[in-house]
Amino acid sequence: MHLVGREIMSDLERMQELAQPAQTKILMLILDGLGGLPLTPQGPTELEAAHTPNLDKLAREGVCGLSAPVGAGITPGSGPGHLALFGYDPLKYLIGRGVLEALGIGFPLEKDDVAARGNFCTVDASGNITDRRAGRIPTEKCRELVELLRQIRLPGVEVLVEAVQDYRFVLVLRGPNLSAHLSETDPQRLGVPPLPVHPLAEDAKPTADLVNRWVAEARKLLADQRPANALTLRGFAKDPALPSMQQIYGLKCAAIATYPMYRGLAKLVGMDILKTSETVEDEVETLKANWGKYDFFYFHVKKTDSAGEDGDFDRKREIIEHVDELVPAMTALKPDVVIVSGDHSTPAVLKSHSWHPVPTLVWSRYCRPDDVDSFGERACARGALGVFPAKEIMPLAMANALRLAKYGA
Amino acid sequence: MHLVGREIMSDLERMQELAQPAQTKILMLILDGLGGLPLTPQGPTELEAAHTPNLDKLAREGVCGLSAPVGAGITPGSGPGHLALFGYDPLKYLIGRGVLEALGIGFPLEKDDVAARGNFCTVDASGNITDRRAGRIPTEKCRELVELLRQIRLPGVEVLVEAVQDYRFVLVLRGPNLSAHLSETDPQRLGVPPLPVHPLAEDAKPTADLVNRWVAEARKLLADQRPANALTLRGFAKDPALPSMQQIYGLKCAAIATYPMYRGLAKLVGMDILKTSETVEDEVETLKANWGKYDFFYFHVKKTDSAGEDGDFDRKREIIEHVDELVPAMTALKPDVVIVSGDHSTPAVLKSHSWHPVPTLVWSRYCRPDDVDSFGERACARGALGVFPAKEIMPLAMANALRLAKYGA
Repeated sequence: MHLVGREIMSDLERMQELAQPAQTKILMLILDGLGGLPLTPQGPTELEAAHTPNLDKLAREGVCGLSAPVGAGITPGSGPGHLALFGYDPLKYLIGRGVLEALGIGFPLEKDDVAARGNFCTVDASGNITDRRAGRIPTEKCRELVELLRQIRLPGVEVLVEAVQDYRFVLVLRGPNLSAHLSETDPQRLGVPPLPVHPLAEDAKPTADLVNRWVAEARKLLADQRPANALTLRGFAKDPALPSMQQIYGLKCAAIATYPMYRGLAKLVGMDILKTSETVEDEVETLKANWGKYDFFYFHVKKTDSAGEDGDFDRKREIIEHVDELVPAMTALKPDVVIVSGDHSTPAVLKSHSWHPVPTLVWSRYCRPDDVDSFGERACARGALGVFPAKEIMPLAMANALRLAKYGA
Repeated sequence: MHLVGREIMSDLERMQELAQPAQTKILMLILDGLGGLPLTPQGPTELEAAHTPNLDKLAREGVCGLSAPVGAGITPGSGPGHLALFGYDPLKYLIGRGVLEALGIGFPLEKDDVAARGNFCTVDASGNITDRRAGRIPTEKCRELVELLRQIRLPGVEVLVEAVQDYRFVLVLRGPNLSAHLSETDPQRLGVPPLPVHPLAEDAKPTADLVNRWVAEARKLLADQRPANALTLRGFAKDPALPSMQQIYGLKCAAIATYPMYRGLAKLVGMDILKTSETVEDEVETLKANWGKYDFFYFHVKKTDSAGEDGDFDRKREIIEHVDELVPAMTALKPDVVIVSGDHSTPAVLKSHSWHPVPTLVWSRYCRPDDVDSFGERACARGALGVFPAKEIMPLAMANALRLAKYGA
């Protein structure tokens, strides 16, 4: 008796097996950190407080729910949040911190580069850490120190150092046979020295030796600097070599995003990155200009998240309202499927990403509308999609675009 | 620390472990392709448009939800749709196309038979396919060609060929040591010849040789026929040897279905197939006549799906209304548990199976009613079962029948 059954193929393998060509177009509008919280228990969330007649219309004609990026209670970073939106299980696929930090500054990471996030810190005369962030030195100072570190040469590999912001920088090693299986040097507490890098895999020893040598030289160069006289390295990682969305879904995909990190994330899943400018209006113009050339558009709005991180409830509401005003210009392009969602929640009252599932709507001619008639957290909680994993958004989009063949006879 | 925990047993193993005897009876009423779509965004679906006072009463007294046969966005074939209803994970258990095609014509498939779906096709003088369906020849012509092919003999095995419909037929090999691990011969495109069969497992070579020999002889016999002068073979498969519902649930199970494929599916999971006639009234009579003899009845109504496939919204609505009129005759038998659901959705506007989850109600003395007071897609979306995997219907039915022991002390 086969009470266990055969091994189940992965969701992505199944998508690849079922995906079929069509002429339909999918627009995925992502308001970063869209989900919110009320200021008072009975009050509205940012999205509920916003006047959004156009999103409400899509919600009324579409089907709604709350998408959970990773799982109950889990607050996602931007990496996992976006991987889920693109259909990749964020528990199976991970983008290392070093890679994400490099993407965030638009660093042109190559396939076998090893990237790490660096922090400038302060150590005392005995070499013990007294401030893990070196008093949050200004970015200008960070750039000066990075310039200093660029003197360091290592045998057989290219060493690239880039300032990020405040005390943060990126270190990238480029060369043959490098491994990212390395331990971190940040002890995550004060009163002890930074740790040496240890190889975490058999073949990682040469890379560990190189990094330790680089750190030793950096320590010499930084010794007389104040307050940042040392550094730590975290999150050694390579490009995770994700299967591309083109391979999985057979979709020609384009990304419209104003911030480097989101363009970088889209590039990791194989999207073409469209040139655009600062504002959401600019992004809409980019969408119009490229509408004929792609099957799938990832359209990213950053400032909802920034307002949430700043704790600015009203600004987040206003940005949502501003995006709503631009929705008719997008739907005028006649997408076959529209998805509106976020990569995670960023409630102003928390001033940070949060674990709350994200208001999500799926609109198409064939989406089976539910009773939801406005776009908001409470309304979506009553939607026919229920609370569902965000990684199911792409299969739903593909189905609504009539791009999935029947499973089984 | 044992943070990993023990390996989780399969759902079916757990059911088998917990199943306990009782005197209760379960009626599973399946309206094939039940779920639908509105004709206009604000309009009703087929089920919502239907006047169904009896199903509404069951929904009011029962608990409702939307069952997802396979997963988000996945449109199930009849095989996966039914496996899920019977509690088998359709991603773990698969019924091959050849077997399903044989079941569809009521072919008495034996345990180790290898079945394949055949298509008659047209090839040009060079042997390249010019029409994969031979101009959709009429079934009568298909029967003539099948008669021709029945002349072919193979050493050591019995060869059975049966016409299905139009250009489709079934090939069955019966004998010792046959393998279904064979590649398909349909190249799925024009301008190339049918492919030879390749063994996909070590022990499949003798079967591959037999099939290739049969195809070679078939080609000679068909050479002068027009337009069908060649054939392709797909979906080689054996009876998947599923554990029976009796073994899993300890239920004596009977199937009432008018179409051969559904009787065949029920037979694969070990149900007794009850003799019945054409109409739903006939099926109700069969139910009455056999009520005392079984614990579980699978009652299948086919014509809802047929109407959906034909794009006939009103006919689908009328069939639902007709079934509703017969519900009191079923409930008069005093089932302890009533399930009403479908194996998938077949919205008239799509004229095909679809990915939308299926309105489902569970009625029993102990089902904990929710606020749903009518049976329809939007109503079920608000039900206490939410959107849930269809494979959970049987565990719910078993629980409501008080046939599952407590899990753990």
